[in-house]
Amino acid sequence: MKVKRQNISEGFLFTDQYELTMAQVYFRMGMQETEVLFDHYFRSYPDYGQHKAGYCINAGLEWLVDWMQKVRFTQQDYDNLKAHTGSSHKPLFHKDFLDWLKAYGSYDSLSLQAIPEGRVIHPHEPLTVIRGPLGPAQILETALLNQLNYQILIATKASRIRLAGNNQLFIEFGARRGQDRGANAGARAALIGGADYTSNTGISYNLGFPPKGTHAHSMVQLFLSLGYSEEEAFQAFADVFPDDCILLVDTIDTLKSGLPHAIRIFEKLKKKGHQPLGIRLDSGDLAYLAVQAAKMLDKAGFTEVIIVLSNELDELNIWQILQQIKVDGMQNGLDPDQLIKRLIFGVGTRLITSAGHPALNGVYKLTAVKDNGSWKPALKISESGEKVPNPGRKKLWRLYDKRGKATADLISQAEEDPSQAESIELQHPFLSEKRRTLPKKDISKIESLLIPIVKEGKKIYNFPSIEEIRKIRDADIQQLDAGVKRIINPHLYHVSLTSELGRIKREVIESLKKDKR
Amino acid sequence: MKVKRQNISEGFLFTDQYELTMAQVYFRMGMQETEVLFDHYFRSYPDYGQHKAGYCINAGLEWLVDWMQKVRFTQQDYDNLKAHTGSSHKPLFHKDFLDWLKAYGSYDSLSLQAIPEGRVIHPHEPLTVIRGPLGPAQILETALLNQLNYQILIATKASRIRLAGNNQLFIEFGARRGQDRGANAGARAALIGGADYTSNTGISYNLGFPPKGTHAHSMVQLFLSLGYSEEEAFQAFADVFPDDCILLVDTIDTLKSGLPHAIRIFEKLKKKGHQPLGIRLDSGDLAYLAVQAAKMLDKAGFTEVIIVLSNELDELNIWQILQQIKVDGMQNGLDPDQLIKRLIFGVGTRLITSAGHPALNGVYKLTAVKDNGSWKPALKISESGEKVPNPGRKKLWRLYDKRGKATADLISQAEEDPSQAESIELQHPFLSEKRRTLPKKDISKIESLLIPIVKEGKKIYNFPSIEEIRKIRDADIQQLDAGVKRIINPHLYHVSLTSELGRIKREVIESLKKDKR
Repeated sequence: MKVKRQNISEGFLFTDQYELTMAQVYFRMGMQETEVLFDHYFRSYPDYGQHKAGYCINAGLEWLVDWMQKVRFTQQDYDNLKAHTGSSHKPLFHKDFLDWLKAYGSYDSLSLQAIPEGRVIHPHEPLTVIRGPLGPAQILETALLNQLNYQILIATKASRIRLAGNNQLFIEFGARRGQDRGANAGARAALIGGADYTSNTGISYNLGFPPKGTHAHSMVQLFLSLGYSEEEAFQAFADVFPDDCILLVDTIDTLKSGLPHAIRIFEKLKKKGHQPLGIRLDSGDLAYLAVQAAKMLDKAGFTEVIIVLSNELDELNIWQILQQIKVDGMQNGLDPDQLIKRLIFGVGTRLITSAGHPALNGVYKLTAVKDNGSWKPALKISESGEKVPNPGRKKLWRLYDKRGKATADLISQAEEDPSQAESIELQHPFLSEKRRTLPKKDISKIESLLIPIVKEGKKIYNFPSIEEIRKIRDADIQQLDAGVKRIINPHLYHVSLTSELGRIKREVIESLKKDKR
Repeated sequence: MKVKRQNISEGFLFTDQYELTMAQVYFRMGMQETEVLFDHYFRSYPDYGQHKAGYCINAGLEWLVDWMQKVRFTQQDYDNLKAHTGSSHKPLFHKDFLDWLKAYGSYDSLSLQAIPEGRVIHPHEPLTVIRGPLGPAQILETALLNQLNYQILIATKASRIRLAGNNQLFIEFGARRGQDRGANAGARAALIGGADYTSNTGISYNLGFPPKGTHAHSMVQLFLSLGYSEEEAFQAFADVFPDDCILLVDTIDTLKSGLPHAIRIFEKLKKKGHQPLGIRLDSGDLAYLAVQAAKMLDKAGFTEVIIVLSNELDELNIWQILQQIKVDGMQNGLDPDQLIKRLIFGVGTRLITSAGHPALNGVYKLTAVKDNGSWKPALKISESGEKVPNPGRKKLWRLYDKRGKATADLISQAEEDPSQAESIELQHPFLSEKRRTLPKKDISKIESLLIPIVKEGKKIYNFPSIEEIRKIRDADIQQLDAGVKRIINPHLYHVSLTSELGRIKREVIESLKKDKR
């Protein structure tokens, strides 16, 4: 987070060098203004090892567009590239190219279509489509992938954590474990995907949310070192925050020290007319301790006091804790559902790093080139069918069944409108023999998913607030089948091509294979 | 990477809220100026699953100090905290505390000692020690952990990749897979730990390095879409970069299309007096393809042309590729050592995310408090001995044996000087029965590792350049035993306490256990 010369590393040149060397080749060929399309999409759901996502949540778009509108190729960038020499000690970048960058080095010429933030998304479908001159469209690649991939990854993880946690309140705690200021992007994505709040103060105020947090072990330690007791530390906290008093009870011994001390403090608060808020458990067997803590709190009359759980949580741990509480709570004479309703989860490391799957395999691929006024599909042939992009100008549709559940996403050619067809043929995106036909009568709604966001550099979309994005998210998740939302071994949601797009894809592959001369 | 209001989320309030609520408690108790010590240390080496680190590389310090010197509590921060209400709808932060923050909200009162960047480091030892008034020392926690943990993690991974790659040139490729601008911190840490270059352009110029990069599949795709051939795409690239021509040969078919085309281009370059630079392989069986590519290049007389390998590489993959090349190269009539010497590795996702272990478990723990003029040790008792910090003011020493190899690190009390003792007792950091005595005659050097960096806000250290840091790193790695450097199942390096520090630690734990009233 070196502040000096930050503008060099976070501006227009926040990109891989090969984008610039390619741009210079295009410039030399006179292709820098050739109109092209690039698709951003991901190839597979995050697979965390013992569990796997069955859907993703889109995120990152507003920050990307904000950045694209702000950055400019500067004189400093010019000077840096000019001084860069290659193997022959001659300048790698030539004066005419640098002058072109100086004149056109911005993203003001690009148009952008995208699926809005908060929406459920799936592999192989175009999430963000960039259209415009080849030069800037190519140079954008690195920064676009950097900003979209990470926020999608974290919004997805946060959504899973929310589902596993029975929709209980959940707070993002990961600032200390993120990648430098990337932690702020992670906090935003968590808020979009499922977290109610974040402990990260600055980004909370930036986004207009209150941050959340109480105290750490170090507060109790400090009091102990100065000759005070744990209870006196709690008392000091309660005095300053009588109506927001959540006490961390595991510095010395959770059940023998922390909880009895907390209960005594809560009794004093109650006498003074305050409502004690909660306790936090940050070590040990959280399910066992939550049950024991609830018993002790109930016995003392604090049935409303919340229990915050933290420490290496993720969707799988939370799911297991809830399962254990359902059994243990009952055996301990508690209503498990009641107990679960008083839980709050604090989730740090495993959310901000998307532990088990720390990077979305999102890619940015050239899909079409305008040549003599008409669009030509472009693609790369690779040995694995899964890696072949879907060529050309496309549209993306979501099909809902009679129950109102999303049943498949369909990628079509730009000119097609499946909502006008009698029946819809769904073809597997890379196994052309796998296909099925859906009669129109089984479909209750066909929705077009890509929205125009930027037109030639001009924003033509009002970005929704985080609260509005969450409503979009909740509606989409509501429309997913339970099997797709399963934390472990989810049912596979279908993303298909229209038969027309499937045909074109096969044609392009064949024509490229012939080109192997 | 939203640019608007970036100063809110990247300045003084880039911290968890609980640091601020605790600071308010300290302020209310009149403790905000109490002098304290916090240690930053990590608890265990990164464990990537199938392989594990036996040492780490320190990094992140210069950027942390730069940030600490720059940030200030601003009027905007004041207004945000002032408007923040709690459960009772009353302000959570009080006017007197906010006024104190306005007057003293900076890190100008803190002193910082640390192990320099690039040095080999181990678990449980104090890497950075903060000394100063409790208020700012507490608030610093989140940003310090955020900035140091991540760079240590990536410098460590980069060091392992360099070792696994036989010290061949290696380039960091991960900008698109990092967490937003955290990718810049990752690139810097990679350059410190083992990468020679990064493809990330902005951060390269920021740090004064040339970025590296050639072209992507999209360049070949584009030419194909416009009716040109792969060879014509290569030709265009070679025309613009005749002396820096590295061609990506796997867009269509590596051995049948890419390589024959590249060789034809290289022949033309050679005729014109240029030295063709290399090819890049980015898919398929990289070991097999590297051998086949070398054979084809050799046959065409291009024995010097380098072979860049990329695609999901990490230390384990690289190590396995080199093993395979040693066998396959021989069977194909090539000198495997010759072949390995022409390899360059491009490492992206798995480096920038430290795949398998995406967060260092670095912590920042209160270790001592000044009370009535004397330092009192502070610690937290936890159920796991490994989690108990080493209390009090300390020094850190590295002991070298007669071969000049580092044999153990030793943590002592601040007043101790093991270099003056006749023999040195090494005690296990949390298993007090495990100890051994090292006679002075077996030790060739005892080195003190912590250096004063900042004194009450004033920088008193000249941060070395990346090149100088690399020399520090290479010297330290040279002094490590081969077993400690092993990629898989490394030998355990000893980090010990002096018997005096061990005794104090046991005493503090006992006295705290008695406190469970």
